[in-house]
Amino acid sequence: MNLLLLDEADFVAADRAVLRDRRLKHLHEVHRAESGDRLRVGRLGGAMGEGHLLRLTAEEAELEVRFDQPPPDKLPLNLLLALPRPKMLRRVLQTVSAMGVPRLVLLNSYRVEKSFWQTPFLEPEAIREQLILGLEQARDTVLPEVIVEKRFKPFVEDRLPALANGTLGLIGHPGDYPACPRAVEQPVTLAIGPEGGWIPYEVDKLREAGLQPVQLGERILRVETAVAALLARLF
Amino acid sequence: MNLLLLDEADFVAADRAVLRDRRLKHLHEVHRAESGDRLRVGRLGGAMGEGHLLRLTAEEAELEVRFDQPPPDKLPLNLLLALPRPKMLRRVLQTVSAMGVPRLVLLNSYRVEKSFWQTPFLEPEAIREQLILGLEQARDTVLPEVIVEKRFKPFVEDRLPALANGTLGLIGHPGDYPACPRAVEQPVTLAIGPEGGWIPYEVDKLREAGLQPVQLGERILRVETAVAALLARLF
Repeated sequence: MNLLLLDEADFVAADRAVLRDRRLKHLHEVHRAESGDRLRVGRLGGAMGEGHLLRLTAEEAELEVRFDQPPPDKLPLNLLLALPRPKMLRRVLQTVSAMGVPRLVLLNSYRVEKSFWQTPFLEPEAIREQLILGLEQARDTVLPEVIVEKRFKPFVEDRLPALANGTLGLIGHPGDYPACPRAVEQPVTLAIGPEGGWIPYEVDKLREAGLQPVQLGERILRVETAVAALLARLF
Repeated sequence: MNLLLLDEADFVAADRAVLRDRRLKHLHEVHRAESGDRLRVGRLGGAMGEGHLLRLTAEEAELEVRFDQPPPDKLPLNLLLALPRPKMLRRVLQTVSAMGVPRLVLLNSYRVEKSFWQTPFLEPEAIREQLILGLEQARDTVLPEVIVEKRFKPFVEDRLPALANGTLGLIGHPGDYPACPRAVEQPVTLAIGPEGGWIPYEVDKLREAGLQPVQLGERILRVETAVAALLARLF
């Protein structure tokens, strides 16, 4: 937690916040904070600044807060991910949020196991929890938008062309394709497949929507590593 | 497991291997393999090729194997990492191995908690286990060398200058530094700090050994994400 992220419900006055939840525990156990300490704070969806810890007890923390800095810029990116397995999903949500992805589409694919769609980690509150951990890690305040698309074809045929319009459309896909470009100057729509990759039909459909396959070398990376590697190379 | 990695002990003849361990379980439960299937195989430290599953029972798998391909190239890199917390260490070892790092130094830092050095995950067999998972993921056969350096100063003063000699020496460090270079043409020695970063004394010592700070933007990334992002940008 490199940023103490405050929600509207935490505020008791315009410049005062009181915490009683996991963040209080974190202040005690990880930060080993004491009354009088100054901490980086952010307002969810808003600015960042400094908090002055007025009071810290086992039950609650009271802070005086001041916001004077904008959050960091987001990447100019639409990220499409074949739904990862539940354990990986949680980590990927954190990575995506920490790296500044503004919009994530979790998409079905032939190689996504049907059971993955049943995970409680896909519930809005569970998604939000992981996204917030990513914001706290990276020092950002703005939640990414997460869109869940359980059906590949209607999304790729009907909605993806508009989403990808005016962007550089890329499919991260192992094989004999051009290398993923570096330091691009324009917005990107990037689709990353499941373990085992998109099937040929899916690659064809993504191409029809304006995306072109690119590769990152012959090594097969876990989705979380592939996301970090592709974004670091593109931007 | 995108590659079935075989050790000397698995061979019953020059072109025959028999498996009874976690890989057998993986063949059954994840690959849902059957007798007659053909699988990608590799010889630990050697070549890669194809295995023909002659027999698959609950007790063992017998394969006829043929090796005809070299493993992928490693990155021209010495990677120094402040020892991460135990849970992260395991994942970082997999990432490092999957991304093709040939040499990893796990190093002490002021901000590494002393208790991290007590973890059983630092034992050679535990390290090897994670590295092998990374090789199986990425389709590689060559284990990275892992060097454990519990004392920062003697390593950085006495051994790092020789290790970094003839390489581009970089410190991944948040702050007002030049951006991490892209697509470098020479070998690199890269030092990545602990959560909270290297302390100024450590940055000075790393500089004296020939490394220069570079940054990846204002977002603070978890070490696993930072490793993937820095390597994808450098190579």
